[in-house]
Amino acid sequence: MNFLSDFIPLFLQQLQSPTLGFLIGGIVVASLGSQLAIPDSIYKFISFFLLMKIGLTGGIAIRNSNPSEILLPALAAVLIGIVIVFIGRYTLGKLPGITVPDAVATGGLFGAVSGSTLAAVLPQLDSAKIPYEAWTAALYPFMDIPALVTAIVVASVYLSKRNGKASENVEIWPIIKESMQSSAVTSLLLGVALGILTKPEPVYESFFNPLFRGFLAILMIIMGMEAAQRMNELRKVAQWFAIYAFLAPIVHGFLAFGLGLVIHKITGFSIGGAVVLAVIAASSSDISGPPTLRAGIPSANPSAYIGASTAIGTPVAIAICIPLFIGLAEMMG
Amino acid sequence: MNFLSDFIPLFLQQLQSPTLGFLIGGIVVASLGSQLAIPDSIYKFISFFLLMKIGLTGGIAIRNSNPSEILLPALAAVLIGIVIVFIGRYTLGKLPGITVPDAVATGGLFGAVSGSTLAAVLPQLDSAKIPYEAWTAALYPFMDIPALVTAIVVASVYLSKRNGKASENVEIWPIIKESMQSSAVTSLLLGVALGILTKPEPVYESFFNPLFRGFLAILMIIMGMEAAQRMNELRKVAQWFAIYAFLAPIVHGFLAFGLGLVIHKITGFSIGGAVVLAVIAASSSDISGPPTLRAGIPSANPSAYIGASTAIGTPVAIAICIPLFIGLAEMMG
Amino acid sequence: MNFLSDFIPLFLQQLQSPTLGFLIGGIVVASLGSQLAIPDSIYKFISFFLLMKIGLTGGIAIRNSNPSEILLPALAAVLIGIVIVFIGRYTLGKLPGITVPDAVATGGLFGAVSGSTLAAVLPQLDSAKIPYEAWTAALYPFMDIPALVTAIVVASVYLSKRNGKASENVEIWPIIKESMQSSAVTSLLLGVALGILTKPEPVYESFFNPLFRGFLAILMIIMGMEAAQRMNELRKVAQWFAIYAFLAPIVHGFLAFGLGLVIHKITGFSIGGAVVLAVIAASSSDISGPPTLRAGIPSANPSAYIGASTAIGTPVAIAICIPLFIGLAEMMG
Repeated sequence: MNFLSDFIPLFLQQLQSPTLGFLIGGIVVASLGSQLAIPDSIYKFISFFLLMKIGLTGGIAIRNSNPSEILLPALAAVLIGIVIVFIGRYTLGKLPGITVPDAVATGGLFGAVSGSTLAAVLPQLDSAKIPYEAWTAALYPFMDIPALVTAIVVASVYLSKRNGKASENVEIWPIIKESMQSSAVTSLLLGVALGILTKPEPVYESFFNPLFRGFLAILMIIMGMEAAQRMNELRKVAQWFAIYAFLAPIVHGFLAFGLGLVIHKITGFSIGGAVVLAVIAASSSDISGPPTLRAGIPSANPSAYIGASTAIGTPVAIAICIPLFIGLAEMMG
Repeated sequence: MNFLSDFIPLFLQQLQSPTLGFLIGGIVVASLGSQLAIPDSIYKFISFFLLMKIGLTGGIAIRNSNPSEILLPALAAVLIGIVIVFIGRYTLGKLPGITVPDAVATGGLFGAVSGSTLAAVLPQLDSAKIPYEAWTAALYPFMDIPALVTAIVVASVYLSKRNGKASENVEIWPIIKESMQSSAVTSLLLGVALGILTKPEPVYESFFNPLFRGFLAILMIIMGMEAAQRMNELRKVAQWFAIYAFLAPIVHGFLAFGLGLVIHKITGFSIGGAVVLAVIAASSSDISGPPTLRAGIPSANPSAYIGASTAIGTPVAIAICIPLFIGLAEMMG
Repeated sequence: MNFLSDFIPLFLQQLQSPTLGFLIGGIVVASLGSQLAIPDSIYKFISFFLLMKIGLTGGIAIRNSNPSEILLPALAAVLIGIVIVFIGRYTLGKLPGITVPDAVATGGLFGAVSGSTLAAVLPQLDSAKIPYEAWTAALYPFMDIPALVTAIVVASVYLSKRNGKASENVEIWPIIKESMQSSAVTSLLLGVALGILTKPEPVYESFFNPLFRGFLAILMIIMGMEAAQRMNELRKVAQWFAIYAFLAPIVHGFLAFGLGLVIHKITGFSIGGAVVLAVIAASSSDISGPPTLRAGIPSANPSAYIGASTAIGTPVAIAICIPLFIGLAEMMG
């Protein structure tokens, strides 16, 4: 029961986090019949802004990383990000009453990465005196962005197939191309490209980074107001999201830890680095995920995936997965 | 005439303040026939942003205050905020040629609180060695927000009654409910609730606080452009607003100082605290008031209430009321 | 060939600058068929924001300058700013295949001033121990704003005449008046007026200055997406823009240096000051120009004038004109 004494305060703290707090605020306001509305053009701009920022963050991190050293762990991160989406699609998505777009979006969110969970593991590795490569933090965009793009593509393919099922032979490549040309994926990849190829640091530091939290908070209010309309859908299936959100971080973490150990055997990648990879996989994003998935999979219910990730997934990643994988690394060290 | 030598430089300085300066800029631009226009969706976003920020500021201040100590002075602040609106409604609003929405909005602005007037009194109490409780600054949202909400509700009730006067029996509760569900009041109260219940400080410090002055300046230009269309309405009755703006701070200050002295007798609330309460009541808001009243009472003429408050009310509060109540406190001390 | 070794790295560095990088990003995104679109109301707000900021910067610089000392050099700066536009109109604008709005916009951009080129010359004057007046940096708005306003007016007059050529006698004053009442010029001059007459520093420092680069970057993406539609127009005439962009900084610099020497003879204005004036004239704006000209001359092709200025004009101004005029000043000193 030591676990519960760690878990419950983290759970309560998450309820006060701006991300979940503003989402709940939006739900309450809409439920009380408020006439508050954020104009659609503002939503579109906020969405573009947030995705550009997420892309720029990733692109700058990639530019500053060492390509030869990072190659294999980065490929592992890309692979894990993609696989996590398919795990969500074919486990959560097969449960009764759960729609595929909701399952894929949830998978995308758990494939995406939480910067704060990543920030939590690094000092704990230091305290435990487990060495790890300094560039491991730069692995996060390699898992984050493929997971989100994969989720958008998988949902688009599913929806096209379902709508065109009469003809049965839906072509997949045009749908993938269309997903890549959508506003959401374009904004994300444009940010990545500008982060890698230009030097956007002055714009990033003066604009995209400081305003990010604020626009995210406003997006949360918008998503909360929308979620209020869709609460009934969720009530009957909430337990499945809760079970998924509890188990997924542990499963994803073991998957990544195993892959990390394989790379450790091949290239000498440190065991501490494998812990970082595992925790990145265990984490779920309450930062990059919600705006991307809201724009890229509009038919998914944000209160399902954000609630699952923020209220359960993140506390599990921090309170269970971090000590678990650090303990395993110590046993091996 | 010592007073005039204090008053006139303050008056001139206010004309250079961004709030009034940008308002006048908007008036001039529109009078010269410019095609400049700020899109309506931008106005709606700015309005939402400003009201959220005002609410968050209040909510955070309330969360950080001590509930048991602050209770009675806070109730007094709420009461004064509400009463000031009714004073405006039944004095200014009864004068010839003055519309009730204009009078109520002006009352709301004089009931609301100026942070800079509050900031001006505290060091002067320190210099005069008059002790006061550290939490008295936290009283301001208890007067500010009730005054603004009361003004919106009173104006809505008045307008509904006037438009439905044929039937004579207008129900008040539905109108109050509708006022509370309006965008303006929702944004304000959502901010208060998030400020009290969540920990929005990171978002507040990185977004709402630094951008506040800028969006307020842009709102002032918008309000100035609107005011230019309505200057004729104002010309015949400007003297009544000037007289009200001169007397109101003094009357409101005495009212609050008296109530503060009563609480001093009952609970030992300091006389310095009563001075703070009096100056809060004497001050009028050029920060929280204009965006809230513009959104909540669109039929009121902004150039009337902002001009009265900024050009006359604030200099009177600083140059007359602060020395007056500090002098009274010293006589009693 | 020493020049090429200076020029080429500067040229490559400009390609990575956020201004040009985001423009190219917008071009690429649109060419790939992305559905990304920034809502028009957002564009209008960004445009207003940027022009207000440019105006405020100029207005504050003018307010802080010494009127008696600066008078003659400031008049020279105004004159040069206006003349540069007409040079562009009657040289570039007469070449085959080049439209007059494109030529006038390019002239406006080369008349406008680059803050970073200005920032580059001052320490080099210090190193060369050439004295100059501290206020010379304040000369830039006197050239920048007249050049941009002149370009907008000249383009409007040209377009009105062309469209109304049947009647032949187009009246010029109404068109100038209309240009001055346009959103773009109003925003710019409102900023100048507020910068001179009020004290907008708190708003400027907390809002307009920090957000400027970010909104400019977003505008560049918008302009790039537009430019992608119009690439064909440019292909046949790109060499004329390249030749103009190479020669114009040198010609404009000599013009201004000559005028500066005349003022030196009359008033004792320093030769170092004449160098500053020459470099201001040689510089072309990638900051104030693009948003102003996009809003004020919508028919001009942004990829023409921004490409010419950023990719060629700025490297020439820094790598050729600065050492050239410092060398001339040393020969005279």
